[in-house]
Amino acid sequence: MHYILKIDCPDQKGLVHGISGILYASGLNITETEEFVDHEKNQFFMRSEVVGKLNREEMLEKLSGLLPPSSNIQLHEKRKKNIIVFITKEYHCIGDLLVRHHFGELNANIQAIISNHAHLQGFCEKFNLPFHRVSAEKIERQEHETKISKIIDQYQPEFLVLAKYMRILTPEFTHRYKNKIINIHHSFLPAFVGAKPYVQAFTRGVKLIGATAHFVNDNLDEGPIITQDVIQTNHKNDSKMMARAGRDVEKIVLSNALRLVFDDRVFVYNNKTIIFQ
Amino acid sequence: MHYILKIDCPDQKGLVHGISGILYASGLNITETEEFVDHEKNQFFMRSEVVGKLNREEMLEKLSGLLPPSSNIQLHEKRKKNIIVFITKEYHCIGDLLVRHHFGELNANIQAIISNHAHLQGFCEKFNLPFHRVSAEKIERQEHETKISKIIDQYQPEFLVLAKYMRILTPEFTHRYKNKIINIHHSFLPAFVGAKPYVQAFTRGVKLIGATAHFVNDNLDEGPIITQDVIQTNHKNDSKMMARAGRDVEKIVLSNALRLVFDDRVFVYNNKTIIFQ
Amino acid sequence: MHYILKIDCPDQKGLVHGISGILYASGLNITETEEFVDHEKNQFFMRSEVVGKLNREEMLEKLSGLLPPSSNIQLHEKRKKNIIVFITKEYHCIGDLLVRHHFGELNANIQAIISNHAHLQGFCEKFNLPFHRVSAEKIERQEHETKISKIIDQYQPEFLVLAKYMRILTPEFTHRYKNKIINIHHSFLPAFVGAKPYVQAFTRGVKLIGATAHFVNDNLDEGPIITQDVIQTNHKNDSKMMARAGRDVEKIVLSNALRLVFDDRVFVYNNKTIIFQ
Amino acid sequence: MHYILKIDCPDQKGLVHGISGILYASGLNITETEEFVDHEKNQFFMRSEVVGKLNREEMLEKLSGLLPPSSNIQLHEKRKKNIIVFITKEYHCIGDLLVRHHFGELNANIQAIISNHAHLQGFCEKFNLPFHRVSAEKIERQEHETKISKIIDQYQPEFLVLAKYMRILTPEFTHRYKNKIINIHHSFLPAFVGAKPYVQAFTRGVKLIGATAHFVNDNLDEGPIITQDVIQTNHKNDSKMMARAGRDVEKIVLSNALRLVFDDRVFVYNNKTIIFQ
Repeated sequence: MHYILKIDCPDQKGLVHGISGILYASGLNITETEEFVDHEKNQFFMRSEVVGKLNREEMLEKLSGLLPPSSNIQLHEKRKKNIIVFITKEYHCIGDLLVRHHFGELNANIQAIISNHAHLQGFCEKFNLPFHRVSAEKIERQEHETKISKIIDQYQPEFLVLAKYMRILTPEFTHRYKNKIINIHHSFLPAFVGAKPYVQAFTRGVKLIGATAHFVNDNLDEGPIITQDVIQTNHKNDSKMMARAGRDVEKIVLSNALRLVFDDRVFVYNNKTIIFQ
Repeated sequence: MHYILKIDCPDQKGLVHGISGILYASGLNITETEEFVDHEKNQFFMRSEVVGKLNREEMLEKLSGLLPPSSNIQLHEKRKKNIIVFITKEYHCIGDLLVRHHFGELNANIQAIISNHAHLQGFCEKFNLPFHRVSAEKIERQEHETKISKIIDQYQPEFLVLAKYMRILTPEFTHRYKNKIINIHHSFLPAFVGAKPYVQAFTRGVKLIGATAHFVNDNLDEGPIITQDVIQTNHKNDSKMMARAGRDVEKIVLSNALRLVFDDRVFVYNNKTIIFQ
Repeated sequence: MHYILKIDCPDQKGLVHGISGILYASGLNITETEEFVDHEKNQFFMRSEVVGKLNREEMLEKLSGLLPPSSNIQLHEKRKKNIIVFITKEYHCIGDLLVRHHFGELNANIQAIISNHAHLQGFCEKFNLPFHRVSAEKIERQEHETKISKIIDQYQPEFLVLAKYMRILTPEFTHRYKNKIINIHHSFLPAFVGAKPYVQAFTRGVKLIGATAHFVNDNLDEGPIITQDVIQTNHKNDSKMMARAGRDVEKIVLSNALRLVFDDRVFVYNNKTIIFQ
Repeated sequence: MHYILKIDCPDQKGLVHGISGILYASGLNITETEEFVDHEKNQFFMRSEVVGKLNREEMLEKLSGLLPPSSNIQLHEKRKKNIIVFITKEYHCIGDLLVRHHFGELNANIQAIISNHAHLQGFCEKFNLPFHRVSAEKIERQEHETKISKIIDQYQPEFLVLAKYMRILTPEFTHRYKNKIINIHHSFLPAFVGAKPYVQAFTRGVKLIGATAHFVNDNLDEGPIITQDVIQTNHKNDSKMMARAGRDVEKIVLSNALRLVFDDRVFVYNNKTIIFQ
């Protein structure tokens, strides 16, 4: 069996020695391991991939005995994550995810797609996945989210992926799925927060445009950043041409972020991410 | 002789035909030419390099006869620009510029260096350039700028280059040198305007850091952007490590911007730049 | 009507003036134009987009009258190109193209897909496109190409796109479609020509991996390069991980090249490309 | 005191536990540590920075007791490396290094500069460093290298940096300084090995140009790669313009490689590098 162990806890001397001792004593084979200490906050982070036979309860008990009380310890088998993807009308991110998913490259199992529009329903159904249209028209934001939450509860996903979902979520909703919602924003945050970033970029006359994948928290476009990338632009490109070129950056940035998250390579701490690539 | 012709004016049919006709009739050899029309604002931009013998007054008269009254026409010999460089304590941008200048790569003649600190005086003097220290201590901002202006008046430079000059200029000062002051800001604007952008970047947890060269206008860090670039960063880098890595981006972005400006490749329009590379 | 005019011919004085005069006299509106002179080879290149009513034969006659006898003049309506896509077993490039095609983003009409394997047939048929499997097993290379050529003749495509088609074409075949076959090679050419470039890259220990889209000529991987890009890699990545990461570069590089070619922005000259972006 | 420990040895279970145990028992504070296993070759690599008081001999003895006999163990104080820089006529790399060195940013002590030309002597002497001109004219390659070796012996440097040194070294010379000579080559290797890479790049019509810093081994441009980077180019740039633009890539790639080597972050193994950034 192949397991992933993630630990974050206050730093203290001897952690690596102690943890590696527990793994070693269990006869496990460590195929990959990485540690990081945030010296400013005195916090220790470690991720190991181990192969072998282990008793999960026993191992967790040993680790808890060693580590400080406020530690976070995650230990589970390496496996695909269950996710729901949210979309509106734009096809490039969901198209990219569906192709990857179809060929087993996305390290996740897409349980369902939820959209506030019917626009992409036919396309999604080519891939034989449940498509739930939940219109937001003529209803309150909270009523809309209640409907969505009912669908989510049906599936019990581990992550919600906003693949160009063009609606703002309430703090009630984002709280419920803390560090479980991943969004792709079409600018290099913190530049161009909010609506129409390509129009903002065109108006400002920037020479780079980009995209940012981040966890969603209570404040719009202010959650922990996972991945970002940019491409060059120039005076010839209006906001529509920027949007066209930007689509490729968006879909690649999003899929890179998802790979890191679904491979359990991302820690969230202090509204930032520590990523062991 | 080698000349550069820059025209910007309201767009109308036949401009290229008319302008190229005037150049052709003069027997000039066009070695490079580029045009752009901002269709949103209906503005035409053209830059040509021509080689041959020409009567500048006559040529300008012919062009004025052809073009709309509100046209900007610049025609002058290709030559190095006269500049003054402003610095404070950081060495990386001025160091890079002085090496380029020493070997004739910077398409400019550095007439003098002005600094509010004496910190880099010894280093600059290795390169045999006048160094003016104008301390800003214990005097008002306007008194400081008056002193600086007197020095500038001595040299009559065509451009002022802020190579990590860590002081904010008054609108009176920036007005006087409209589109003549080039600054390097250590972030990918419009992200992280103002003080300590690397600390801001570290706090926000971005995965890219960058630099922006721009003309200075009345509003801090909001002038027309000339060039920008970024490099990747990650959780291992604190703001000091970001600053160290960022220095290389800053100096290259600045020198690229200067090359474009000094080669007369940059038009400023509507708080943006049109650049014919 | 919206037309694209492409001219390449030996350079001589007055070309821009003459050509723009013909366009101006016809009352056409030039929405975009760019010229370039290869001073080493003394060759002139020009591309214009014009809007208006024109008599194509008349216009070509006028241009031929003006230009040197060895000129290439292309003038046609702006429209989607007819193409056939060739694949083998890898899904990432064809998947990306099919999604773009489905939503009208690929500036082309995919007439058919040809593959030497049945592997991706089910996937392609989701998109309701003719899929021709032409097995290469147990037959000579030329017999295989004869079978393929018959299918091509049925469709009369303007371009053949090799979207990870893992077979080498004979010079007879490539000659017939000179400058009409576009291939994506999974390295930054000229590094790692031929088979298994990621294995070559891993063995060499490079810190960048990349992809190159190019026209196919008689010599393997030596045709005119259209677009290239790279991403960083490091010692942690074996050739399989490079291949996984490289897939995203390959598909974006290919689709960028196709956009440029299908928008008539690419000239081939002297085994290189001149591209007016 | 601040120490750096580097270990590489055949992989076996329990290495991290054992090594961290020795460090822990000595009361040392580990401020940074990273490991990597090359599973293909079954080789283990580890680098740790430790702070505290240690008896070097004792520590090495303990580590030798734990590790397999064929292990490489390096343990030494964190400090600047002694280096000699080799140049010919190009100024951009040496200019960049001298500025960094002057301000203490280069993690090295430049003991001397050796050049086969007098061209840059005046410039280098601004920085008060010994400059040795060793002309290669009218003498055999080996006689030239003998003269150089005598100068090197005077200084006993830890690394030789070829900062655009335009001469090929004999295997006798490179053997003597195995993994101690760092070169900057002006292409993204393995493309454009040997002379005039920008002319090769122009002739091939590539859309990217780059630079590679690598250790020098017996085969020209085939040593272990440390860092590489590229920038975009296009049809407008001839080989001279590529060379001008490339200079900035070369100097940054070289200085990044030097930082990694001088900070003891680079392992050489199997003609590749493992780098703990």
